[in-house]
Amino acid sequence: MKFYKSTTLTFKNAHVLGGYTVAGPKENAGKYHGKFDLALQNDMFGQKTFERAERKMFEHAMDGALAKCNLGHDELDLICGGDLLNQIISTSFSAKKYHCGFLGLYNACATFVESLIVGASMLNNGLNNVLCVAGSHFSTAERQYRYPLELGVLRSPVTQWTATGVGATVLASQVHKPVPKVVSATIGRVLDYGILDLNNMGAAMAPSACDTLLQHFSNTNTNPTHYDAIYTGDLGKLGKDILLDLLLQDGFDASKVLHDCGASLFFEEQQTYQGASGAACTALVFNCHLLHKLAVGKYKRILLAGTGALMSPTSSFQGDSIPAITHVVEVQA
Amino acid sequence: MKFYKSTTLTFKNAHVLGGYTVAGPKENAGKYHGKFDLALQNDMFGQKTFERAERKMFEHAMDGALAKCNLGHDELDLICGGDLLNQIISTSFSAKKYHCGFLGLYNACATFVESLIVGASMLNNGLNNVLCVAGSHFSTAERQYRYPLELGVLRSPVTQWTATGVGATVLASQVHKPVPKVVSATIGRVLDYGILDLNNMGAAMAPSACDTLLQHFSNTNTNPTHYDAIYTGDLGKLGKDILLDLLLQDGFDASKVLHDCGASLFFEEQQTYQGASGAACTALVFNCHLLHKLAVGKYKRILLAGTGALMSPTSSFQGDSIPAITHVVEVQA
Repeated sequence: MKFYKSTTLTFKNAHVLGGYTVAGPKENAGKYHGKFDLALQNDMFGQKTFERAERKMFEHAMDGALAKCNLGHDELDLICGGDLLNQIISTSFSAKKYHCGFLGLYNACATFVESLIVGASMLNNGLNNVLCVAGSHFSTAERQYRYPLELGVLRSPVTQWTATGVGATVLASQVHKPVPKVVSATIGRVLDYGILDLNNMGAAMAPSACDTLLQHFSNTNTNPTHYDAIYTGDLGKLGKDILLDLLLQDGFDASKVLHDCGASLFFEEQQTYQGASGAACTALVFNCHLLHKLAVGKYKRILLAGTGALMSPTSSFQGDSIPAITHVVEVQA
Repeated sequence: MKFYKSTTLTFKNAHVLGGYTVAGPKENAGKYHGKFDLALQNDMFGQKTFERAERKMFEHAMDGALAKCNLGHDELDLICGGDLLNQIISTSFSAKKYHCGFLGLYNACATFVESLIVGASMLNNGLNNVLCVAGSHFSTAERQYRYPLELGVLRSPVTQWTATGVGATVLASQVHKPVPKVVSATIGRVLDYGILDLNNMGAAMAPSACDTLLQHFSNTNTNPTHYDAIYTGDLGKLGKDILLDLLLQDGFDASKVLHDCGASLFFEEQQTYQGASGAACTALVFNCHLLHKLAVGKYKRILLAGTGALMSPTSSFQGDSIPAITHVVEVQA
């Protein structure tokens, strides 16, 4: 695979002060059971609509992250993030509670990593505390992107299950104790390999993940053995296998270190086929799992590769194939 | 009006290398007639769907901006921008042509100014050339946000007309001749004054414009007399009047310098009522008009205040009021 020339940004002071996760009931019944800060009993979260529930999850995750980091609302300089709903209403509406700046982002399921990149860049620009947030909700995404839930459409074996969850991370320029740091980032390009099957997101996104990872390896003069773990976003099991094959074709054996947030979320018996998808995947796994591994020294150096499929129902109806994007950040303990 | 505490970012090297505009036929029949780099004869632009036409406008604007700045595709480090379509497909799909990083943004009609802020920040982070882009299309926006065009719904006298156009700006860290510079930016917060009338966007957004402008004045120790012009995004005529009133209540008379990109786009007889709206407003007026005024020295110091209404059809159907956001950049000759 021929990679492209993209700069890898470096950050001196992008400390990960802390993170907070809100997850749905099915997610909490999965492999990360008990690791979420808040696990919902019911994905309606006491609201009248799924969209309101998703919004409330964002509010809780953002408030929770600030509280966990002992930060008041007035100490926050910026919120950056997004979600999968049209006009990213979950993030925009939940940001109303805060009296700080807001930058709305959208790179589909790569949005969480995009928010870490924009957030870390804003610290380089002089801000002190930035909240990065992203998430998704199975029931809002399903009816917006696919079919009404009530229709009970049979799912293809290559499909994934949109994860219900929100993850929020506080990046801070100054800290009083040692915390993990976002040290560098490679911003991905939009790549389209002509995949038309909306069920098979893993196949659409795997070449993009390979592309940005190769670029990051090249720019930082590293290879998979330099990292304790490489977590992709939501390639799913099939997409992860495709990525391993693609990397191997370029001479990189990542089989020992590669994980996929989406593929790692559910147990086989939860019948999600290829695992989870959605903006929640990276946001949940980074904040509930990876930050802990970094904090206890189990991981010293990892890559988080947010993967996103950039189509819309309209573009698919009009016959377009699925473009994908992957952003990579390197986080060190 | 009580303003909030938001940092104003400063940029040392955010040079505006050049800009390019593509505008629809109705827009070119308006007050900026003949000033657009490319004016369409027909808003289908030779495509089968309005969405494909909008995408082609993005491709032309981006290619045009690079060509005007004598930059090859390989000299571009990053594209950042967005549009009004669900999942910002116009921007994402048009970015496929470029082999550089892409950051998708969404702050509704404030997206163009958001892209200038993120772009200028990325220059501070070490990138050399960044393309900032945003736009909208009357026919795609109308059917996505309001009614099918074929329905011929009567319009309320407080409505505006979504502008068809795309504007692209190249920001560069190094230049060989004197060009305008983005010197500072204030990122706005999400503000909701409880406006429920989807026709009256100006009323929903004016308090937000006032809020961020007051914050910018305070942080930079300036007032309206320090600027040759202050251009808001798409408040329309009514929204602009509301903003003037709000500013006056806080002791600032901006009547001599305040313009609104949307209100300035069409002639009265073009029957757009309050003028234009849409992400195209700031993107067009900045690139076709303001850059020229700055280049010839007519303007030395201006503010561009991108205004956005962050609702979606879903949020409105569920009874939510309209939150708004305004980002401000200061550009000097």
